[in-house]
Amino acid sequence: MRIAVWQARGPDAGAVRLGDAAARAAAAGADVVVTPELFATGYGRPFGPPDPGLVGRWQEIAASSGIAVVASEPHAGHITAVVVRADGSVAGRYVKTHLWADDERAAFSPGDGTPLIVELAGLRCGIVICYDVEFPEVVRGLALAGAQVLLVPTALDDETVARVLVPARAMENRVAIAYANHVGPGFCGASVIAGPDGRELARAGTDAEELLVADVTAEDLARARGLGDYLADRRPGTYRW
Amino acid sequence: MRIAVWQARGPDAGAVRLGDAAARAAAAGADVVVTPELFATGYGRPFGPPDPGLVGRWQEIAASSGIAVVASEPHAGHITAVVVRADGSVAGRYVKTHLWADDERAAFSPGDGTPLIVELAGLRCGIVICYDVEFPEVVRGLALAGAQVLLVPTALDDETVARVLVPARAMENRVAIAYANHVGPGFCGASVIAGPDGRELARAGTDAEELLVADVTAEDLARARGLGDYLADRRPGTYRW
Repeated sequence: MRIAVWQARGPDAGAVRLGDAAARAAAAGADVVVTPELFATGYGRPFGPPDPGLVGRWQEIAASSGIAVVASEPHAGHITAVVVRADGSVAGRYVKTHLWADDERAAFSPGDGTPLIVELAGLRCGIVICYDVEFPEVVRGLALAGAQVLLVPTALDDETVARVLVPARAMENRVAIAYANHVGPGFCGASVIAGPDGRELARAGTDAEELLVADVTAEDLARARGLGDYLADRRPGTYRW
Repeated sequence: MRIAVWQARGPDAGAVRLGDAAARAAAAGADVVVTPELFATGYGRPFGPPDPGLVGRWQEIAASSGIAVVASEPHAGHITAVVVRADGSVAGRYVKTHLWADDERAAFSPGDGTPLIVELAGLRCGIVICYDVEFPEVVRGLALAGAQVLLVPTALDDETVARVLVPARAMENRVAIAYANHVGPGFCGASVIAGPDGRELARAGTDAEELLVADVTAEDLARARGLGDYLADRRPGTYRW
């Protein structure tokens, strides 16, 4: 599977610029492009209003470029992410479960944790959003449910999360994680595609738009498990919480 | 609290060299010195036999140097770590819960996960051993039980764990972690003291003996929680495992 992460400066009203980014990602051979949290409508105070035409626009982009799209929007009072397959069909919607700080908690309601795992290019891809991935419980749950790759829209202002937590989350679950951040005022870039052995497969800078591309295969995932199979070696009966 | 980590080349029969290291750590103002996994008797095939005099020797060292000691030994068929207070009294023994690979599993039985948390220099210190700390469940459990610092004897041959997982484990629980590894053939050094904000407070090289020292205070822990309070922001009702 070839994953593209679009680190960019938003907002992108009507997802006009996403069309170009998706076409470039598809030209690079990517199977999916992951975009930052609430990228089209704008992340931050005030949060941009929902755009009822966005999902349709994403479907057009996916179908015309022949690439799956993971994109985020406000929906029914939640922060959500939608997976659109390369044929333009909607595979599902995930609701962010861990809201970050007062701004988000004032503007949105959190989800109930219902997981979304979608097969793309032969690998099972779980979707979470931003603060969710900082909780080991969330990613462990998805890995135990069979996810092999996590696709994560985010809006981050502190690189530490992207540099310390994201590679660890990938390694400790033997999954790959594609983590797509904004750049521009209030954001730190540093988007990353982390491999199941804890190495960074691709890493963006902190202040420029970039389209990251990296490959993850079932063989990579199996090889990483051979370094230490954390899922098999768990001892759930001993955990005290 | 000032923590010392003794990265050294073992074995150290009878803990002869530990006496010197503890004295140096105490002279540096440390409240506790953490030593590598099974350091005195030897880690690896064949594992050294138990030495029934070791705990008494650690008690003498702690009392004469005026510093707490965390040291590891085979005991009753387990890999264990003992905490000796600075007055020479034994505060408790922890049994390793996650055994690493076939060598350990052939030679030892795993523990049942009973936690050990000991107050040292005013902070609550949890003890785990090597592979245990690679499991987010283990450290989360200790943090939820009130641990503020983790003291971890280890025997590691792959730096990735020390560089990727240990700082993440500290950050995601807003605890400090002192991780003491061997150097020499089959070991990778890279011992670390990681802070509750994910930064490395001290990091050893990969091939030389070193005595790391770093400070962790209640204020540091509180400040890190202010960056994002993972324990408070958990949503246990949404976790699927």
